[in-house]
Amino acid sequence: MPKKIPYSMKYFTFSEDKSFVLESGEKFGPITVGYETFGELNKKKNNALLVIHALTGDSHATSQYDPDNATPGWWDALIGKGKSIDTEKYFVICANYFGGCMGSTGPSSINPETGQPYGLKFPIFTVGDMVDVQKRLIDHLGITKLHTIIGGSLGGMLVLEWNYKYPDSMENSIVIASAHKSSTQVIAFYEVGRNAILADPNFNNGDYYQSTFPERGLAIARMVAHITYLSKDSIQTKFGRDINENILESDLMYGFFGPMFQVESYLRHQGRKFVLRFDANSYLYLTKAMDMYDLTRGKIKLSDAALKFKSKILIITFTSDWHYSPQESWEIVKALMNKDKDVTYVNIESPYGHDSFLMDNADLERVVSSFLKEKKTGGREKKNNEKI
Amino acid sequence: MPKKIPYSMKYFTFSEDKSFVLESGEKFGPITVGYETFGELNKKKNNALLVIHALTGDSHATSQYDPDNATPGWWDALIGKGKSIDTEKYFVICANYFGGCMGSTGPSSINPETGQPYGLKFPIFTVGDMVDVQKRLIDHLGITKLHTIIGGSLGGMLVLEWNYKYPDSMENSIVIASAHKSSTQVIAFYEVGRNAILADPNFNNGDYYQSTFPERGLAIARMVAHITYLSKDSIQTKFGRDINENILESDLMYGFFGPMFQVESYLRHQGRKFVLRFDANSYLYLTKAMDMYDLTRGKIKLSDAALKFKSKILIITFTSDWHYSPQESWEIVKALMNKDKDVTYVNIESPYGHDSFLMDNADLERVVSSFLKEKKTGGREKKNNEKI
Repeated sequence: MPKKIPYSMKYFTFSEDKSFVLESGEKFGPITVGYETFGELNKKKNNALLVIHALTGDSHATSQYDPDNATPGWWDALIGKGKSIDTEKYFVICANYFGGCMGSTGPSSINPETGQPYGLKFPIFTVGDMVDVQKRLIDHLGITKLHTIIGGSLGGMLVLEWNYKYPDSMENSIVIASAHKSSTQVIAFYEVGRNAILADPNFNNGDYYQSTFPERGLAIARMVAHITYLSKDSIQTKFGRDINENILESDLMYGFFGPMFQVESYLRHQGRKFVLRFDANSYLYLTKAMDMYDLTRGKIKLSDAALKFKSKILIITFTSDWHYSPQESWEIVKALMNKDKDVTYVNIESPYGHDSFLMDNADLERVVSSFLKEKKTGGREKKNNEKI
Repeated sequence: MPKKIPYSMKYFTFSEDKSFVLESGEKFGPITVGYETFGELNKKKNNALLVIHALTGDSHATSQYDPDNATPGWWDALIGKGKSIDTEKYFVICANYFGGCMGSTGPSSINPETGQPYGLKFPIFTVGDMVDVQKRLIDHLGITKLHTIIGGSLGGMLVLEWNYKYPDSMENSIVIASAHKSSTQVIAFYEVGRNAILADPNFNNGDYYQSTFPERGLAIARMVAHITYLSKDSIQTKFGRDINENILESDLMYGFFGPMFQVESYLRHQGRKFVLRFDANSYLYLTKAMDMYDLTRGKIKLSDAALKFKSKILIITFTSDWHYSPQESWEIVKALMNKDKDVTYVNIESPYGHDSFLMDNADLERVVSSFLKEKKTGGREKKNNEKI
């Protein structure tokens, strides 16, 4: 659980009177959004770029503006001075999700009516609600039209939802390693993780903030999800069947069933790191919102949903991503083309699976940079199914 | 945990004097092997066929000989009178694994020296040890040379190990949906399952036989493994994003985080079914033996291991199997061809993933049947890389 947030955030609070209506119909408030901005908003307010983080990300997309550069940004590869998303040109905004645990109101926040954390009394919310909260922040900042919205994985789902709900709110959109709905397999893996949290005796029906956190359950949830973020080949190349030679003292108790292979040690390390920064209830709510998300609402055709889109849209996938596969994004591309929308599709060759979007990747940098530059000069022509 | 075994088994006990030496060097005994036989051993004792079950299987490979046909055999599709493995022709033997929990000595067995179940005091054992125990059973049955050894998944690893350790003990071998070692990804997924068992507060360091079983941990282990046995497409086709409309009373407590989607309900059902029939300690030991298995011992070339093989060998994979992929079997086929061994390889088109080998599959039946028939007539010629 995050004890303190190690970089300077801004906070925007609204709906103190519970005027904010969730998609469920429930009214909820107050809502605080923790966010960071990088670069300067110009006078015309037309250089704002909204970066949307993924499931367990936060507002700290770049460390470029840290006073002491202490905390790496999760997208330092892409965002900063002179980078693909150039903070000398753009006013970059990144907000922690509604329902999250890094600055925004979520299950670990104190309910002012009770003085206690919400826990599982936090309302059920959707990806649509998460977008609505971001929209309120953008309104608050006085921005009528975003230059670009960009996001990967769950962040990409929010980009799609922004386009559906607020098609006039952005000029350009970039959706990376995402899908318009999760596959059955992805739901299944997240269900395993949720079960591990629910089965942890410390979970205590979500009411653990005054006692021991359900760290083992949350760590297991992270472990299983993490495997799905890596490709079979990349995990093979990285760890193979190498034996772990540095067993931690805390793992000695497991004896023969401790981390024998390096990959086991690595996964346990990922689990341990994760529980230091993330809240188990947030994980339950956010994964469920992700699993429930369906751009078509399960009711309309994907191409009919696409009909509402107005922005120039770039869709990027990675060849080895089996979490949100290129085929799944291709469905969206086809739907957008079907409605004659301005869509560009790039399937980047990468061996690293879903996590490719968070790694240094020259192709990704080049594609994003080129898409944004073409927009700037105004000379960009419609291209479908561009391959690099 | 199995309370009783619902079909008639035979038992063979040896090493009462602890003369049996494990690959670790440890001496262990007594060892009981629970096994079933189907059909009749002929006078020449040359029609014996050893069927090796997979990770969580048991000796009940066919229900054909059940007095009341009460318990389905796990390979009823393939084994029985007039079937591919014809019990009118073959004397079929299927034994529960050493370390298992369905008739053979394993962690849930009573240690005669203490009068208590072994639990985690059960010795560490390997796939090689599991084969050695089977070899003792075959010797006990007076069989010098098996007609055929056949096994799928972990069972296929044992078939490979039999060929390496006892190359003169079988005429023919059939390896289905297996590998000569588990990939890093497979190890990673089993490690998640083992962690879920270790994290269950009822696990109690393996000493739970007098109290509550670690059912939730074991169920989670089964859930994650089960996902890897199905292909992404087959789970998508079967469940899609359909909503679960019949929530069990026992799941109501989870509210919003209960099984919302049918796939979630299905996985929980798989978990619940599994804990009724399997022991958590056996699951730890057997998955670890599987993860540790490497035909090459990590020391020699695969083709050098293949050099020892003498049987005619059929290797079968399924196109959509991502647990043990066709590519992994292809490595073995190449190694065997490299040493000019009599190997046939068939990659069967199937959408059902790893579990294809346990399902009704006309191609599988035909390929196994044809391989065995060719052998019988003696007119079988060497064919490499046969495709159907």
